[in-house]
Amino acid sequence: MQKSMQEKVLEWSGVHPDDAFAIDGTNLYEKLGLQTFINLSTNFYNRVYDDEEEEWFRSIFANSKKEDAIQNQYEFFVQRMGGPPLYSQRRGHPALIARHRPFPVTREAAERWLHHMQQALDTTKDIDSDSKTKMMNFFRHTAFFLVAGDEMKNQNKQPKPAETE
Amino acid sequence: MQKSMQEKVLEWSGVHPDDAFAIDGTNLYEKLGLQTFINLSTNFYNRVYDDEEEEWFRSIFANSKKEDAIQNQYEFFVQRMGGPPLYSQRRGHPALIARHRPFPVTREAAERWLHHMQQALDTTKDIDSDSKTKMMNFFRHTAFFLVAGDEMKNQNKQPKPAETE
Repeated sequence: MQKSMQEKVLEWSGVHPDDAFAIDGTNLYEKLGLQTFINLSTNFYNRVYDDEEEEWFRSIFANSKKEDAIQNQYEFFVQRMGGPPLYSQRRGHPALIARHRPFPVTREAAERWLHHMQQALDTTKDIDSDSKTKMMNFFRHTAFFLVAGDEMKNQNKQPKPAETE
Repeated sequence: MQKSMQEKVLEWSGVHPDDAFAIDGTNLYEKLGLQTFINLSTNFYNRVYDDEEEEWFRSIFANSKKEDAIQNQYEFFVQRMGGPPLYSQRRGHPALIARHRPFPVTREAAERWLHHMQQALDTTKDIDSDSKTKMMNFFRHTAFFLVAGDEMKNQNKQPKPAETE
């Protein structure tokens, strides 16, 4: 699975893995601080839950509480970008594809997510442009990684004999 | 999903999340070094691929090349335990549950995996007992996290209307 998945993600996102994981070259948590991550996720989900232009996108989040969505997101970002493992201590491994199973993660949804995140990054104070670039590369890679993961889910709707225990 | 999943993992593994993620309190990669992780995964998979007592367990790995299994494992361990993001640069996010989908991750398989890992930890040189304890807690939590993830997969074999796009 992985070879073709990595190829798909590169093709769709246009982000090379080295750029996606350049977030590991600097400690963005130490650079930006916890409050900036809280502000970013709050800003992001305010936009998502107020998305009146693309009602279909907002509806994806209809069954999730905004406060939970914000906390899940900034705890994951903090953990992945050099800070304490807040997310895992509360919820276990990120398991990004499995935790997105309930949601329709299409290419259109990825682009809309990234649109709101770009806006949120641009309007959250104290995020320098180098950090912004690194984070957007990571987010763009990750968004399309989840699209690829979502497609695997659909493939599994027709179980092959080998998969039936 | 997550609340009950965390509860299941705690019940099955007996490992509190604080203990499972105590690996984040010290940098085990810096403490042990890359070669120790390579030795550990080599030792572990030598045992797995030679498991003659439990043929069913060995057969889970029949379609994977041992060299690939070793590399995937030590690269993930290195990345998760404080080292460079070797795994993600080559394969993307760990996405632990999704990447274990092809395998039958039962409780029996988790116990057999942990049995071999305990032996491997005990017979790989230069792993002090504090690091061993931290790693086993992390592995035990993770093994049963994957069992819980595997059960979600089986639930999804009867798709609910809401999941049909």
